[in-house]
Amino acid sequence: MLRLNEKRLLGALDELAAIGAIEGGGCARLALTDEDKAGRDLVVGWMKAAGLEVRIDAIGNVIGLRAGREKLDPVMTGSHIDTVRTGGRYDGNYGVLAGLEVVRALNEAGVATRRPIAVAFFTNEEGARFQPDMMGSLTYVGGIGLNEAYAAADKDGISVGDELRRIGYLGSLKPGALKPHAFVELHIEQGPILDEEKVQIGVVESVQGISWIEYTVTGVSNHAGTTPMRLRRDAGYLAASVNLFARKLAWEMGGHQVATVGALALRPNLINVVPNRAVFTVDLRNTDEARLKEAEARVAAHIAEVATAERVEVEAKVLARFEPVIFETGLVDRVERHAKGLSLSTRRMPSGAGHDAQMMQRICPTAMIFVPSVAGLSHNVREHTEPADLAAGAQVLANMMLELAEE
Amino acid sequence: MLRLNEKRLLGALDELAAIGAIEGGGCARLALTDEDKAGRDLVVGWMKAAGLEVRIDAIGNVIGLRAGREKLDPVMTGSHIDTVRTGGRYDGNYGVLAGLEVVRALNEAGVATRRPIAVAFFTNEEGARFQPDMMGSLTYVGGIGLNEAYAAADKDGISVGDELRRIGYLGSLKPGALKPHAFVELHIEQGPILDEEKVQIGVVESVQGISWIEYTVTGVSNHAGTTPMRLRRDAGYLAASVNLFARKLAWEMGGHQVATVGALALRPNLINVVPNRAVFTVDLRNTDEARLKEAEARVAAHIAEVATAERVEVEAKVLARFEPVIFETGLVDRVERHAKGLSLSTRRMPSGAGHDAQMMQRICPTAMIFVPSVAGLSHNVREHTEPADLAAGAQVLANMMLELAEE
Repeated sequence: MLRLNEKRLLGALDELAAIGAIEGGGCARLALTDEDKAGRDLVVGWMKAAGLEVRIDAIGNVIGLRAGREKLDPVMTGSHIDTVRTGGRYDGNYGVLAGLEVVRALNEAGVATRRPIAVAFFTNEEGARFQPDMMGSLTYVGGIGLNEAYAAADKDGISVGDELRRIGYLGSLKPGALKPHAFVELHIEQGPILDEEKVQIGVVESVQGISWIEYTVTGVSNHAGTTPMRLRRDAGYLAASVNLFARKLAWEMGGHQVATVGALALRPNLINVVPNRAVFTVDLRNTDEARLKEAEARVAAHIAEVATAERVEVEAKVLARFEPVIFETGLVDRVERHAKGLSLSTRRMPSGAGHDAQMMQRICPTAMIFVPSVAGLSHNVREHTEPADLAAGAQVLANMMLELAEE
Repeated sequence: MLRLNEKRLLGALDELAAIGAIEGGGCARLALTDEDKAGRDLVVGWMKAAGLEVRIDAIGNVIGLRAGREKLDPVMTGSHIDTVRTGGRYDGNYGVLAGLEVVRALNEAGVATRRPIAVAFFTNEEGARFQPDMMGSLTYVGGIGLNEAYAAADKDGISVGDELRRIGYLGSLKPGALKPHAFVELHIEQGPILDEEKVQIGVVESVQGISWIEYTVTGVSNHAGTTPMRLRRDAGYLAASVNLFARKLAWEMGGHQVATVGALALRPNLINVVPNRAVFTVDLRNTDEARLKEAEARVAAHIAEVATAERVEVEAKVLARFEPVIFETGLVDRVERHAKGLSLSTRRMPSGAGHDAQMMQRICPTAMIFVPSVAGLSHNVREHTEPADLAAGAQVLANMMLELAEE
């Protein structure tokens, strides 16, 4: 068995986390910012130092290639190193740096694999600055075109294309030019289930479908003291009612349905003025496409009803929409077998979060390995995974990759 | 009867509205900004040109004095010239410039009144930048001390004291040093009642009590996809539930009760992160103090209940609290008599908005005159009052003041 250096892996995580570090131990490296560039430069340097051939594609995905004994499709692992504004240090970074650790260990052991090994990080997985999320992997598999991706702009109107050029990560490789033999992504769970059940490895069978819609509500601003309730056309009221409806909907539908109003801005946003504008988002997720569509339809019906009663106008803009994804059964089984082979406890589960792996499943056999998140905290500076769990997950990844690389 | 120059009054309104003009015909002259200073300078210039002795007190209130035949307490009128961020051109400004027009007309007619006449504008009536609102008149009547008023800071931490100094309106006169014989404020209704009922003059009997509370909610930020609904501690959810509760409360209590959530900010304010912080305001108003207290108590109870269920912490901060005010009966009757004397239709009503007059009632007999607001729009760039209504209100004010000034 390939011997990984746990201390080196933890050290790399610490070093990357120091870039864009924020109070409380977390990270803010929004996609394509100066902080993201600094993180990319650090990891690219490590890749080169480990002898990898670094290739950058036209959407800024970075792939480090370790040659195999034969010229075959590579076995790929990877994830992302961008974070949300109040992100943790493991989300994404762990998968990338565990892949790097596998390479470093292979180098130390002097092992030459039959197939090449690739370690990748994909652009803008989080979608916190540019939508859609998982942009790099989605472009990699042809899910959106380059021009559409380049045109995506942040709140200040700055585009992905301009930012890629600015930070020097607009590469020449065609996205998807390297077709993997298989793709395995190692990631923290970002949810509470493994931690609550004291299970070491999550065997990920599927990814929930995601629906992100931004609503813009237009009402009439008016004086909060003199306007009788019956005459109000309050944009903020509709936004609030959707928040409560989303909660009720998720409880009623049960199962894997979740619903969140995460972002909201009112205008003019003053104590004594009825808001004439509200912009807010609804994030709906379900492992079942039909149920997800049902949730979307019920939210839309609720909005239409309240909009009529309140006499406000509502515009909806789809920011992201992904159907649920089922991973390759054979590869999923293999995750379970390797974990059990290391005497680790396992649990089959869906992923509640979106991941680059769900895109890669479109072009090659794909699987995911989860490790526990303490208290389920993620997208939070207190995101944490115990070192022993980090090491265990990396070992499952290493064993999977070595096996796949000899096929 | 003193003959006012309607065209001159409208011209002054236009000229003042050009300062801080915003799209749609409105104004943004937040208290003590450069725009407010420019507006103040313009009106002070007009006061001086009209022969008024301009006195500035230590909270920046400006009083223009026209000498009387005898050295008696002056008859005062006035309002404010600061606006909300998306304000109209009549709110406050109308009362100040109508007072100025009365003085100009007196000058033209060569009339010397027995008592002095004073035209005032008070600092920071709106409370859009600094709390509490009606700060200048509140300080004038001793409701808060100068040091407390100076310490009030805006969102960027800039204080009232510093801004008064910066714009050159930190005067030496002690607030309240001039005690009026009577105070009459002319104002647009800022509500829809006069317009809906096609009534020309509102005879204001009282002002609703106002309760402004800012709530800061602390929950836990977490991943919107992986966090089961039962584990959420969503700060935004509580804010939304208060918005809906406030609406329901106002309907249930009926009468003059209104309730508004006008300002709300979420953190981290991202699509896919459960908010760990929400800061929002609740504006409650009622003409009856006991009912207002009941509304406050019910909102507090609702918040406590939801906070427990959602396991979030809530801090409340009172931004402003004023009891309902009843104006001097004799003076209110006189507004009605003068309006009827001009063959204008009248309606007795409470004021839903706070006004400087409610503070002045603490130190002298006070009354208010309302004119219609088209469609009730106010704190809105489309705020409008017909020229004929503006002229009619100014004439009622002139007749009131002339009568009072001979007493």
